Amino acid sequence: MGPHPAVAAIRLAVRRVLHDVLTDVQRSSENAPPRPPHEQPPQPLVLVACSGGADSMALASALAFEAPRLGIRAGGVTVDHGLQPGSDLRAAEVVVRMTALGLEPVESVAVRVGRSGGPEAAARDARYAALDAAAARHSAAAVLLGHTRDDQAETVLLGLARGSGIRSLSGMATTSGVAGRYRRPFLRIDRQTARKACMVQSLPVWDDPHNADPAYTRSRLRHEGLPALEKALGKGVVEALARTAQLSRDDADALDAWAARAEATVRDDAGLLECAKLYALPPAVRRRIVRRAAIEAGAPAGSLFARHIEEVDRLITGWRGQGAINLPGKVVARRQGGRLVIRQG
Amino acid sequence: MGPHPAVAAIRLAVRRVLHDVLTDVQRSSENAPPRPPHEQPPQPLVLVACSGGADSMALASALAFEAPRLGIRAGGVTVDHGLQPGSDLRAAEVVVRMTALGLEPVESVAVRVGRSGGPEAAARDARYAALDAAAARHSAAAVLLGHTRDDQAETVLLGLARGSGIRSLSGMATTSGVAGRYRRPFLRIDRQTARKACMVQSLPVWDDPHNADPAYTRSRLRHEGLPALEKALGKGVVEALARTAQLSRDDADALDAWAARAEATVRDDAGLLECAKLYALPPAVRRRIVRRAAIEAGAPAGSLFARHIEEVDRLITGWRGQGAINLPGKVVARRQGGRLVIRQG
Repeated sequence: MGPHPAVAAIRLAVRRVLHDVLTDVQRSSENAPPRPPHEQPPQPLVLVACSGGADSMALASALAFEAPRLGIRAGGVTVDHGLQPGSDLRAAEVVVRMTALGLEPVESVAVRVGRSGGPEAAARDARYAALDAAAARHSAAAVLLGHTRDDQAETVLLGLARGSGIRSLSGMATTSGVAGRYRRPFLRIDRQTARKACMVQSLPVWDDPHNADPAYTRSRLRHEGLPALEKALGKGVVEALARTAQLSRDDADALDAWAARAEATVRDDAGLLECAKLYALPPAVRRRIVRRAAIEAGAPAGSLFARHIEEVDRLITGWRGQGAINLPGKVVARRQGGRLVIRQG
Repeated sequence: MGPHPAVAAIRLAVRRVLHDVLTDVQRSSENAPPRPPHEQPPQPLVLVACSGGADSMALASALAFEAPRLGIRAGGVTVDHGLQPGSDLRAAEVVVRMTALGLEPVESVAVRVGRSGGPEAAARDARYAALDAAAARHSAAAVLLGHTRDDQAETVLLGLARGSGIRSLSGMATTSGVAGRYRRPFLRIDRQTARKACMVQSLPVWDDPHNADPAYTRSRLRHEGLPALEKALGKGVVEALARTAQLSRDDADALDAWAARAEATVRDDAGLLECAKLYALPPAVRRRIVRRAAIEAGAPAGSLFARHIEEVDRLITGWRGQGAINLPGKVVARRQGGRLVIRQG
């Protein structure tokens, strides 16, 4: 008798990602200097980032099961955010649980969460910095993250609320970070499956009280926003949102590539953007070029909203002698002699 | 003292659209045969589609105010869907109200709502057929529709629930239909403003009980889904959704144009799609070409989902000798000799 369907599902998802990791490792070793013939290549290490919650405990269990079968070492890291009393004890407990799964090396990393960008963003920044450092310390080939399809759906809705276009609808990537270090095997697995897989494997899980705290946007979305949407639109909403993420990501990539190519064709000999040539481009491409130029001039990407780009765009499409337009980061856009000039100061 | 801000807002929105209509009318009259010098060109007619609800009553009032100032005749049509007892009496009352606003001609058109595509789609199809006929009968230059920013937000969420990509996120267009006949001046006006404008102008409005009937998806979305999302994500959600619609529409237009151009370059001398050339395109462009080819072969666009296109795409990106793939409309896709063949039967 095979494993429970939930366990089979999480293992298959992890196996696929490990195959990809191996392919990448082999490809990069082909470019490495030749090794003496008697020396075995070291087994690559894959780490799991584990909070002790159901999603990442399921992920850790699947990694522990699949990795040895593929000649991969499996380790784990848990991050102690220090945001609740006793968080250090909990982190130590997660280390014990990961060790019990057979992961090695296993470690807990304490971080200090700042305040920049709000509590959720600050915690995330601290967490990724710690994971980056752990990956480098252990020369890990990859770090697996337990984000599920439900997390992806929530991320799409959070992006939707920004109203800043399809890039913000594209959610989390299956592969991200430096050299594609972070992998998300569970983006097509739902939270329920991960929880079930823990249950049938008798894995203790820890429910982060933050996940139910209505002070957090994501928590409100999870417990109120998404259920209400499902009630109105039907049960397929989470899947539809996750699919929207993938499609939006591909679309945004293609349009970014187009804009990068087109940008070279709309500059004059002095490197300035020519309004007449910009005007001839599709609005979607033109606005991306404007956005790139603003960021290049020093505007912080995160503070540059669709309405800023729209206003600059009107210098091209609705020119009636308007004045300079102030953008975030003290960047100023103006039209001069048929050129769009975007610079700081 | 000027008008109430809500009234000023709806009038400005309508004035802008009427200017566009006039520009289009003048442009097309330049191509018309010359008129005898003593004959005045007839004043163009703009109709408003009015249900008697707050949105379309506000629209009717703004049209009645602005049109004469621009040398435009303003008329109105109300559609009696015959779905509730007494709907004919109500339509007659809307005719009286439109006449009281000074609209002329004004008429009520009774339609028979079929069943195709569900109750909401069937009512919409019947309504647009009646409006098309009325516009033709009166040689109207445009028909104004009262969809607000809130309607747009709902439409985006309905599209999101389909999970079929950014085209379905692009909501309603400001201009649509044959020769851009339909115009939506209120897509940036919120429902509250329209209602307020009716109130301060003492216009009686009629609340369609369908709008509050939880049997309708849109009604559930309006009364439960969107409010819950706003509670989780903040009050800016409706605006963010409406902006997403505009950005998605521009993006989808640009990618469709790219796909149309690229399609010519990936066909061989016999007109068949070459898999190797398709493979080299960005996924977003490739999938659009596949989708176009499937529709051209007879697959009904409305039944062709993202998962169908994904499966066909794997004939190109993940070829391992898989068999033919069945698509809606008895269309079959297969890979033969490095070509993607999509045809009926």
